[in-house]
Amino acid sequence: MEEAIVLGERGRGQTAPNPSVGCVIVRNGGTVGRGWTQPGGRPHAEAVALAEAGAQARGATAYVTLEPCAVPGRGPACADALIEAGIARVVAAISDPFHHVNGDGFDKLRGAGIIVEVGACAAEAERSMAGFLTRQRLGRPFVTLKLAMSLDGRIALPSGESRWITGEEARTDVHRERARADMILVGRGTYQADSPSLDIRLEGYEDRAPRRALLTAGDAPEGWEAIRAPEAVAALPGVNDLLVEGGAGAAAAFLAADLVDRLLIYRAPILIGAGKSAIGDIGLASLAEAHGRWSLAETRMLGIDRLDVYERVRS
Amino acid sequence: MEEAIVLGERGRGQTAPNPSVGCVIVRNGGTVGRGWTQPGGRPHAEAVALAEAGAQARGATAYVTLEPCAVPGRGPACADALIEAGIARVVAAISDPFHHVNGDGFDKLRGAGIIVEVGACAAEAERSMAGFLTRQRLGRPFVTLKLAMSLDGRIALPSGESRWITGEEARTDVHRERARADMILVGRGTYQADSPSLDIRLEGYEDRAPRRALLTAGDAPEGWEAIRAPEAVAALPGVNDLLVEGGAGAAAAFLAADLVDRLLIYRAPILIGAGKSAIGDIGLASLAEAHGRWSLAETRMLGIDRLDVYERVRS
Repeated sequence: MEEAIVLGERGRGQTAPNPSVGCVIVRNGGTVGRGWTQPGGRPHAEAVALAEAGAQARGATAYVTLEPCAVPGRGPACADALIEAGIARVVAAISDPFHHVNGDGFDKLRGAGIIVEVGACAAEAERSMAGFLTRQRLGRPFVTLKLAMSLDGRIALPSGESRWITGEEARTDVHRERARADMILVGRGTYQADSPSLDIRLEGYEDRAPRRALLTAGDAPEGWEAIRAPEAVAALPGVNDLLVEGGAGAAAAFLAADLVDRLLIYRAPILIGAGKSAIGDIGLASLAEAHGRWSLAETRMLGIDRLDVYERVRS
Repeated sequence: MEEAIVLGERGRGQTAPNPSVGCVIVRNGGTVGRGWTQPGGRPHAEAVALAEAGAQARGATAYVTLEPCAVPGRGPACADALIEAGIARVVAAISDPFHHVNGDGFDKLRGAGIIVEVGACAAEAERSMAGFLTRQRLGRPFVTLKLAMSLDGRIALPSGESRWITGEEARTDVHRERARADMILVGRGTYQADSPSLDIRLEGYEDRAPRRALLTAGDAPEGWEAIRAPEAVAALPGVNDLLVEGGAGAAAAFLAADLVDRLLIYRAPILIGAGKSAIGDIGLASLAEAHGRWSLAETRMLGIDRLDVYERVRS
C-alpha cells in the first residue's frame, strides 16, 4: 500500500476534480501492475495497473488507495474492470465519500466474490487525497497556507525587501508544493510588490502550470483569476488543492474565515525586527480562542531553514 | 568530565564574579571526591572535592571543568591544594582566560610533576561557564534573550493580553533559566504591563533571587536596578549571566547593540495575527545583514510548545 500511495502522489495537481489514486497489483509476491490516475483524471489508476498486468491479474491482489468506482464514466467502472480481470482480493486504504461510489464499489466487488479489506495506510491516503476528500465532505478545496518567515515572524523588511528570507532548499520545497496544487493564490499586495510568476522550477515538473488566482475586489490580470473572498473558492470548478502563498492580508483573510486546513511554515534562522508581519488581523478576541487549533504534523530541516507543517484540528 | 560539568551547573547563578566550576576526583576507577563552586564563589570546586577525598586524593586523577587557579585568594590556590594532596593527574576541560590564571595554573601543576591534559568536553564547559568567560574575554556579561511567542512571532494580542501563550512546561523551563542567571532584565513597557515578579517557582530553587533590572531612562522601583542602555551592563559588578526577558523594545535594544549571545525562543502552536511583535526595530538595512548571525544549538519540545536555542555566530 505504501507503494500505491507513492504512485498516487505522482498525479497530484493534475487530476482534479478526480482524486489522484495509486494502484499496485501483486501476484505470488511479485508486482505485475502499477498505475496512477492520469492527467485530466482518466484513465483511473486501476485501469492503468490492470492494463500492465494483463492476464497476470487473474487471482492477484489489487492494492488501491481509494475505493474503486462503481458506475461507468468515460470508461468502464473500476469495480467492473477488477471483476472482469479476475482479481481475487482488493485491499483499499479508504472508502470513497463521493455519492456515486460511497460503498457501492466495495459492494460490487464483494458481490462478485472478491475479498475486500479496507483501512491499510488510511491516514496516509487521507493526506494524499485531502483535496478530493475535502471537496466531497465540505464542498470546497483543501487549503494549504504557506508562509516563509524569520524567527520573529517577519516576511519583509520595512522597505519591502523580502528576497530572500529562506534558502534554496526551502524554496525548492515550495515548488514541490506548487506542483501538487490545482491553483495558487496570492493577495493583491503580494502581486503588486513581487509580481510573482508562481511557476514551478523543478526538474520533471516543467509542464506543470497550476492556475493562478488573485484575492481582489478588482479585475485579475491576464492569466490570473480573480477571487472576491476566501469563501468564493468553494465555487471554483476543478480545484481540489489550493495553495495560498500570502501575503499577510490574504493569509489573514483565509484564517479569519477558518478556511486553512494545513499550514506550511518555512522559517529562516534570522531576526528582522521591524518589518512586515506574516499574518494580518484574524479577528482574535482572546488568547483562549487561539489555542487548540493547530497540531504539528511534520517538521524537517531544509538546509539551515526549518519547515513545520501544522494541520487544523477539527473535532 | 561529563559529571564534573553537571556538578558545575549546580552553582550557576550563585558564584559571580567567579565561574561555577565542577570537579570530580577519581582513584582506581572509583569517585572519591566531588565538588562545585559554592554560593558566593568560595570554596572552589577543587577544594570541596579534595576535602571529600581526603587521603584518597593521593595518586588520584582530578577532572575539573576549568584550569585550577594559581594565586592564593581567600583560600590557598587550587593548583597548590591539588599538589599538596598528591593528585597525580589533572584533566581540565578548558584553560582560564582570567589574567591571574591564564596558563599559570597548568604550569604550576606541571612544575610539580603532575600530568596535565586539557580539552575534554571543552564545548560543554564553554557553554556552562559562558558568563564568566564572556566577562573575561569581552568585559561584559553573557546575555541570553528569551522570547515566548506564537508561530507568527506575536507576544501579545492588540489588547495586551499575553497570558498565556506558551504552556506550563515551557514556563517551568524559563524558571530554570532564571535560576542560572545573576540578573534578569525587562523593558519599561513589560514592567508596566505585566509587573513581573521574575521569581523562581521551582522546587529546590526557592532561595534563588536573581537581581532584577529595568531598562529605563527613569528611576527603578524598589528592589530593581535601573539600566540606562544595553552597553551599561558591562559595568555591572557581579553579573556574569544576564537574562533579558523582553519585551519587544528591550529585545530590540540589545539586538541592535549586538549584545545578545544566546536566543531562547519558546514557541506555541498558535496563530495570533494582529498583535504585539516579539522584536522592535533593530536597525536592519538589508536582509543580507540578517543572515549568518544565528546558529541553532538545541531544539526540544516542551509539551506542545517548542524551545529553539540559537547562539550568536561570532567569527
